[in-house]
Amino acid sequence: MSTRLGQLVESLGGQLIGSPDILVTGMAPLETAGPQHITFLSNAKLRAQAGLSAAGALILSEADHALVSATYQGACIVTANPYVYFAKAAQYFVKRNAPARIAGVHATAIVHPTARIAATAVIAAHVIIEADADIGEHCDIGAGSFIGRGARLGAGTLFHPHVTFLADCHIGERGVIQSGAVIGSDGFGFANEQGAWIRIPQTGGVRIGHDVDIGANTTIDRGALDHTVIEDGVKLDNQIQIAHNCVIGAHTAMAGCVGVAGSAKIGKYCTFGGAAMVLGHLSIADHVHVSSGSLVSRSIHEAGQYTGFYPLAKNADWEKSAAIVRNLEDMRHRLRELEKKIKP
Amino acid sequence: MSTRLGQLVESLGGQLIGSPDILVTGMAPLETAGPQHITFLSNAKLRAQAGLSAAGALILSEADHALVSATYQGACIVTANPYVYFAKAAQYFVKRNAPARIAGVHATAIVHPTARIAATAVIAAHVIIEADADIGEHCDIGAGSFIGRGARLGAGTLFHPHVTFLADCHIGERGVIQSGAVIGSDGFGFANEQGAWIRIPQTGGVRIGHDVDIGANTTIDRGALDHTVIEDGVKLDNQIQIAHNCVIGAHTAMAGCVGVAGSAKIGKYCTFGGAAMVLGHLSIADHVHVSSGSLVSRSIHEAGQYTGFYPLAKNADWEKSAAIVRNLEDMRHRLRELEKKIKP
Amino acid sequence: MSTRLGQLVESLGGQLIGSPDILVTGMAPLETAGPQHITFLSNAKLRAQAGLSAAGALILSEADHALVSATYQGACIVTANPYVYFAKAAQYFVKRNAPARIAGVHATAIVHPTARIAATAVIAAHVIIEADADIGEHCDIGAGSFIGRGARLGAGTLFHPHVTFLADCHIGERGVIQSGAVIGSDGFGFANEQGAWIRIPQTGGVRIGHDVDIGANTTIDRGALDHTVIEDGVKLDNQIQIAHNCVIGAHTAMAGCVGVAGSAKIGKYCTFGGAAMVLGHLSIADHVHVSSGSLVSRSIHEAGQYTGFYPLAKNADWEKSAAIVRNLEDMRHRLRELEKKIKP
Repeated sequence: MSTRLGQLVESLGGQLIGSPDILVTGMAPLETAGPQHITFLSNAKLRAQAGLSAAGALILSEADHALVSATYQGACIVTANPYVYFAKAAQYFVKRNAPARIAGVHATAIVHPTARIAATAVIAAHVIIEADADIGEHCDIGAGSFIGRGARLGAGTLFHPHVTFLADCHIGERGVIQSGAVIGSDGFGFANEQGAWIRIPQTGGVRIGHDVDIGANTTIDRGALDHTVIEDGVKLDNQIQIAHNCVIGAHTAMAGCVGVAGSAKIGKYCTFGGAAMVLGHLSIADHVHVSSGSLVSRSIHEAGQYTGFYPLAKNADWEKSAAIVRNLEDMRHRLRELEKKIKP
Repeated sequence: MSTRLGQLVESLGGQLIGSPDILVTGMAPLETAGPQHITFLSNAKLRAQAGLSAAGALILSEADHALVSATYQGACIVTANPYVYFAKAAQYFVKRNAPARIAGVHATAIVHPTARIAATAVIAAHVIIEADADIGEHCDIGAGSFIGRGARLGAGTLFHPHVTFLADCHIGERGVIQSGAVIGSDGFGFANEQGAWIRIPQTGGVRIGHDVDIGANTTIDRGALDHTVIEDGVKLDNQIQIAHNCVIGAHTAMAGCVGVAGSAKIGKYCTFGGAAMVLGHLSIADHVHVSSGSLVSRSIHEAGQYTGFYPLAKNADWEKSAAIVRNLEDMRHRLRELEKKIKP
Repeated sequence: MSTRLGQLVESLGGQLIGSPDILVTGMAPLETAGPQHITFLSNAKLRAQAGLSAAGALILSEADHALVSATYQGACIVTANPYVYFAKAAQYFVKRNAPARIAGVHATAIVHPTARIAATAVIAAHVIIEADADIGEHCDIGAGSFIGRGARLGAGTLFHPHVTFLADCHIGERGVIQSGAVIGSDGFGFANEQGAWIRIPQTGGVRIGHDVDIGANTTIDRGALDHTVIEDGVKLDNQIQIAHNCVIGAHTAMAGCVGVAGSAKIGKYCTFGGAAMVLGHLSIADHVHVSSGSLVSRSIHEAGQYTGFYPLAKNADWEKSAAIVRNLEDMRHRLRELEKKIKP
């Protein structure tokens, strides 16, 4: 289904330079876009490539428009933040082209009589919904998902197939949870009695705000006594582990394979690179950015970028540097000896 | 449902200082506990806070009781290990408040005629149990779980929803497996023939002892020829990967995101911090403790705490230290040159 | 079911030294193999043990045969690559002993009327197959798996139970996907608008070649606009995360817990040790080998082995070396000062 450029700009704003009657069918990357596609320029390195693009329309900044318009032949949509505009335009096309949703509960779904399902919700095949769960308007629950006793889903929340959302977990509006994610698993709590581990029942829940995305096979444990908390706008990629009683501040984003140990309190507007790890009971300020592969072993009270990973090298070079790292104290001692000898 | 303090102490021991007729309904954290709650003090830093708690009863050590009793108004339960007592008291309340279990097989479960299901077991909706599987008394199998051919579950074992427990895997009594865990996936075994990888069938099973907990989305591979072995009392958190033919010794505990490569033999009473990694074919002694984020690249024959992660720093500082680490050999060389010059 | 050695060698090649009429039932490890078993010797350290093995037959190289034949009593199969021969022999026995497959769709599976299922395919209980999916000859789809709209599976592909294979994902012939894996989850793409994250719809698919193995709970994201690509013969272990728009070159193998960030292009015939991580938008040459626990933070243009992890030490020793690493600049400064003083 094609769209007039004029119609798109009416919906999303931006300044259209070119004919509003050009018809486009969706987004495409710079290098493969044809006359029926819109593409975008947000990386200065791709400016020359953009100038040669065959796309029907190009989303770009005013500054880039001045530089690219000499060679680029198609229409332009000029906007302050081309990447955000691209995101919204892509959402526009996905919504237009999505297959029709038919509200209702599939015949093979098993819904407890005390659960409340909004009339506009879609409950797919083999879904199980337990007692007292509450599924909001326009929710879309993918095949084979499990929703536990007393769970609550805000309006417009989407579960992909095979989500496990256990008892006493809540998520706000417009949430997205991807396949294989487990929300509300028991926190890892044991007391040690003469070597053996005694289970500590985990009786808190999980409280997730609005506009939260949770990736595939990510796990979020329920709290021990209080809740685990994920605030509004948090974005979690795949295979992330959030332990019991963590608080993840609003609009914080974490890339794949990040782990956060129990009771860590993470600020708002933070970012974590892939496989970053945070130890338990730490506190991290707002606007902290942790690089990939870095272990946060103490609280961070000041905004900024933090890093800690061993630099990669050819294996033979690493062998040498690692051998010295193991023995740095010896090196420091020898340096001190030299300093003593030379000073007098 | 409320409990008399006297009844609790009769079940769990400890010395009650205060009225046995005080009624409590469950556990709560120090800061939010009210007169209907029990709380506990096991961290000396929280002593002042405990003194001011409004909890109906406080579990604590004899030494702490002497220090706290001046300000704290409620009843006390004095015990040698307050954290263990808290764990057991919490278990007591969870058991009392749990919804009634109704033994039997849900109408939508698919059970092979040769599988044996104990009369007291609960098999939830959409569970699949294959030929020759054996499910012990009081087992509780969560919705949508899969139990393969010849699998065996000891009495009192609990599977949360969506567990995958494949053919020829055994688990002992009182086990707990959380959602999304996969037990008995094929080990990663390939022989290389001129660049291409030839699959090695994995024909061993998984043998898991009694009182083992396995976290959400954790994976344990079956052995190549022999079994992968998890001994009694082992506790595995979420998203742990145990490769084929590992042996994890009794009462060892691993935090989230730990990985253990093939054929590693890990001792008893070990602990592994989050995201620690163990290379293949290594041997680790009993009572070894590996810090979070540390890679074990050689066998460890002596008990103790081991660590190996790059310290976190502000990114600019890390850039400097990492540049020097890359080039430590140069630094050592310069130090040697100085030593030569000075010696004579 | 037992096999004559002569029959095995007719199928798989190799030089049989001993009677072709010896009957064997399967493979076993050196230390436990009995007269009914075949075992193999591919590690020189185990030569003495092989010499004493009670196995009915031993697969080994010509050189090892010369060294072992003095003590070893059973039949020998001499071959250039005993480990590859072992893999193929194990496959031979697994195939012979596998329970009979009965082609067809289980009564509880839900198959969309527009999906095409080959007559020789097996579709197990509770499987869901959506519109326009295409399942090739001799495919075997494990219980509870989900196959999305427009997905395609080449002939002979095997899904273990509980695989999630989402819309517009393709896999070639003879693929294997293990339980809990999620193929086609949305890539982690967001544009930042004044602190809040705007979702970028992920409209690409996943294209997986022939002879690809994917481990338990591994996740492969769909591309943002283009596809994510996994080439022929790639082997991925458990709990691997492949982000959107990656290209993994043919015959590359990755051990458990590896993560690859978005748009990384990885060459052919590479290997990645467990928990290795690759940052986004990097390019890695063919025949690159990355050690376990190493973070690849820049492109690698030259074949070879690369490493970067902090060496493990007793915690007290690590504390000292880490303190110096944090302050290496000071050490370099002091070295320079000494050099200045000594030079003149």
